[in-house]
Amino acid sequence: MILYDCITAPSPRRARIFAAEKGIELEKVQVDLGTGEHLSESFMRINPRCTVPALALDDGTIIADNFAIADYLESIQPQPALIGSNARERALIIQLNNRIEVEGFMALAEILRNSSPRMKNRALTGPVDFPQLPALAERGRARFQYFFPMLEEQLGDQEFLLGDHFSLADISAFVVTEFAGWVKERIPQDCNRLQAWYARIKARPACSA
Amino acid sequence: MILYDCITAPSPRRARIFAAEKGIELEKVQVDLGTGEHLSESFMRINPRCTVPALALDDGTIIADNFAIADYLESIQPQPALIGSNARERALIIQLNNRIEVEGFMALAEILRNSSPRMKNRALTGPVDFPQLPALAERGRARFQYFFPMLEEQLGDQEFLLGDHFSLADISAFVVTEFAGWVKERIPQDCNRLQAWYARIKARPACSA
Repeated sequence: MILYDCITAPSPRRARIFAAEKGIELEKVQVDLGTGEHLSESFMRINPRCTVPALALDDGTIIADNFAIADYLESIQPQPALIGSNARERALIIQLNNRIEVEGFMALAEILRNSSPRMKNRALTGPVDFPQLPALAERGRARFQYFFPMLEEQLGDQEFLLGDHFSLADISAFVVTEFAGWVKERIPQDCNRLQAWYARIKARPACSA
Repeated sequence: MILYDCITAPSPRRARIFAAEKGIELEKVQVDLGTGEHLSESFMRINPRCTVPALALDDGTIIADNFAIADYLESIQPQPALIGSNARERALIIQLNNRIEVEGFMALAEILRNSSPRMKNRALTGPVDFPQLPALAERGRARFQYFFPMLEEQLGDQEFLLGDHFSLADISAFVVTEFAGWVKERIPQDCNRLQAWYARIKARPACSA
């Protein structure tokens, strides 16, 4: 398997951390988003969606969706379980992970992609250009203000976001937390438990993957 | 188990069809989105996110995410498999389903929620009001133009979107196709194979669920 990766970008980092937590070594090929390598003809032949992470299986199949990559790695190497150990746990992790995807990643992407001069006409990922909508950057910032308080409430007095077990949801929320710094958002001071959670997650060896 | 449902809305329809294809009978409670019942205090006590579908498990756990509901039902009743029979099939179904979610459902929701007078200040789901952005409705329409041609290409000469087996991706794409009519979008005339696929799916008994 080959993971098409970009060492500086948040999305492929989620896949790298997930694999590292499982002790799965993936061959990595860097795709330089900074110079637009993801939009090149040669990368479009690998992943026509022009995104990383993209996992190439040994038979050539391309899996270019973060949750699909996580689910695949969980299927081929179930331990340690990062997407739950039974139907209910799985559903709760998937549900929270999707919330982090929409209310965290997408909100931050709305801010960044609709305001950064470097991302002119790159308001959406993919091969087609879409112009920036400044009002959508503003709305992204407005909705993101609910994100960390939601996580703080979800965490409560637990060690991890869904209880005693570290999961995919912790990985996604951790990467969102660091990605938030790109647009000058951070965990509010009064979210004490989330601050402590962040320090715990950051100290995990896999999280430097 | 109880499925909180709205018989007229596209999102809970996906869960209804999924359960019906598996022959799982769910007790259903209707939540009237038209009169704002999903934003009422009594429903917020059930699902604070104010969305349907929401599946209440017998222990009171609420699963209020379409893919999480599908995954839960697949776990407790694996046959017929609707999310694949091995790691690779699962990953491909999840990947396509997420694409249908973002490029189909979200694009249509951008059009509808940012333009319909009935949805003033309801540009996003959830308990918080966000004003409509007319420019986002326009962008939703622009990006949706790529959706059906993408499905036509994905389908190719196959019976279903991912080959010989009916899957969750077919359910999601079918519901998007009918939802598209709400904003006067339909399968283009030149997408012949997709037109035939739509007729095949619509004829399935579960798709009238």
